[in-house]
Parts: sequence; structure tokens; C-alpha cells
Amino acid sequence: MSITFADPKPLSHAELEEGTAFAPRFDASGLVTAVTTEAGSGRVLMVAHMNAEALALTLQTGEVHYWSRSRARIWKKGESSGEIQKLIEMRTDCDQDVVLLTVEQTGRGAACHTGRKSCFYRIVEVQDGTAKLTDSGEPRLFDPKAVYGA
Amino acid sequence: MSITFADPKPLSHAELEEGTAFAPRFDASGLVTAVTTEAGSGRVLMVAHMNAEALALTLQTGEVHYWSRSRARIWKKGESSGEIQKLIEMRTDCDQDVVLLTVEQTGRGAACHTGRKSCFYRIVEVQDGTAKLTDSGEPRLFDPKAVYGA
Repeated sequence: MSITFADPKPLSHAELEEGTAFAPRFDASGLVTAVTTEAGSGRVLMVAHMNAEALALTLQTGEVHYWSRSRARIWKKGESSGEIQKLIEMRTDCDQDVVLLTVEQTGRGAACHTGRKSCFYRIVEVQDGTAKLTDSGEPRLFDPKAVYGA
Repeated sequence: MSITFADPKPLSHAELEEGTAFAPRFDASGLVTAVTTEAGSGRVLMVAHMNAEALALTLQTGEVHYWSRSRARIWKKGESSGEIQKLIEMRTDCDQDVVLLTVEQTGRGAACHTGRKSCFYRIVEVQDGTAKLTDSGEPRLFDPKAVYGA
């Protein structure tokens, strides 16, 4: 089974925003933004990118695949770490350039390569006119050196 | 008061990911991705972009400002619709190219220009090998024609 998507170009504004065709508006690099949330808690775990192949693989297999911009290849989440993401639901936004994933985060429950559940473990706070980061206290669920090597 | 950010270029990988300097990694267009969630529910309301000025204005005023790519200008959320977003918290991710906002969505509670609370009102479902969209039933909280004109 190969999953096909609609081409957004011939769609009207109303068809894009209110219609039933899934017509991802890939950017110049062929990517949409993917925001991944945890089933149950709704917490935002991570933000990454998907090309058409990653979208299709995710829908076909039920396991989340992204496009790694740094490695320029398809990246099945958890392929190294074991932290597979099982797709519960995929949504798209009004202008179809973002997908919102609800996933069950398997393994130790860490979506972030630093070993934390979420990549968003630091809070931005302004101190004397400078924006600084404060650790939110998100615990590490694995040791990245042990999982990925030094 | 003008808020300053750190330059990510001289930072080590460890400083970028574990440090206290807020050093947004703006892309070639000078933008970071902003994911906006609703305080209390944690629901993802919308995804947009911020340049340095939008980030600074948001932190200075406590009201969320984005960079509108389509209009190529600073866009104070709610400036036309009245749906101002009050910033409760800002976080950044491990590699500092995304900010995660927690906001109080004022006005009628609609972050989306279609009048819905969230831009993510359609679910992607595969039917006979084609990905289709199903309306999740998110109600309209305002009539976009009445708010923005026809």
C-alpha cells in the first residue's frame, strides 16, 4: 500500500481550509513541520519535520517517521534509542503546512535525545534585559552517552 | 527596555542544549517556529513564526507577537480580531530553533482565523490508500466574515 496525498496548488483557499483533501503544503525543501504530543497528557514532546515519504510511512506503519534535516535521510523515531512513537492520531492545520501528532511514546518515554520526556525542558525568563534559560527540572529517563555513545 | 538574545554560533553543543543562554537559532529567513498552547488544557492552538523582534516584543509586553510570512510584517496576535494571547510561559527546545508558548487565549477564545479555538480541527485518515481529512467538530467561536470582512 502506498498512500497518496492531494496537490494543494489547484485547491481554492476554501478547499484548502475547509475541505476533505489532505494536501500537505510542503516548503521549498519538501517538508512540513510536525508537532508531536503525548497521548493522555497532551504535552508537546518535540517538533521535527516530515517529507512526503515520512508522512506516508507514518500513516502506513503506525510508527512515526521524520525527515532528519541534519542527516538528510528518513529517520524512524526510536531506531537507535528504542523510543518508538506509536501514532494515535494525526491532524493538520488550517493552511495544511503543519501536522499535529498524538503519539504513545514507548521505550522509557523519552522523546528527546537528551534523555528527557520532552525537548522543552528550559523556560525563557528575562533577567535585567537579557533572556535566560531556567531548567524546568524535567528528569532524564536515559543516559544519552549510554544510548548513543559518547 | 530592549531584550537581547545570545548568539548561538560561538556556543558549544553542550552550551546550546544544557546551558542558560537563550540563543535562538533563527533560520535563513531569521525565524524560529512558535508552537502555541492553551494554559490549563495544554491544547495546541496554532503554529506560527517569530523573528527576533517578535520574540522581544512578546517578552517585553506579555502579549504574543509573531512574524507574518504572508504579510512580511510583525503581527500582534488579535490586532484585528481582538483575540489577544497573554503569555504565561515561554520555553525553548534542546537545539533552540523552536519556542513553545503557553498562553491565555483572550477574546472569544479562538486562536484560528477560521473562528475555531485551534487551527487543528481536521483529522487525517487513510481511506483506500488516500489520506483524507475528517472534521473533528471544533465549533466556530466567531464568524470570520464578520471579523475580517468578506
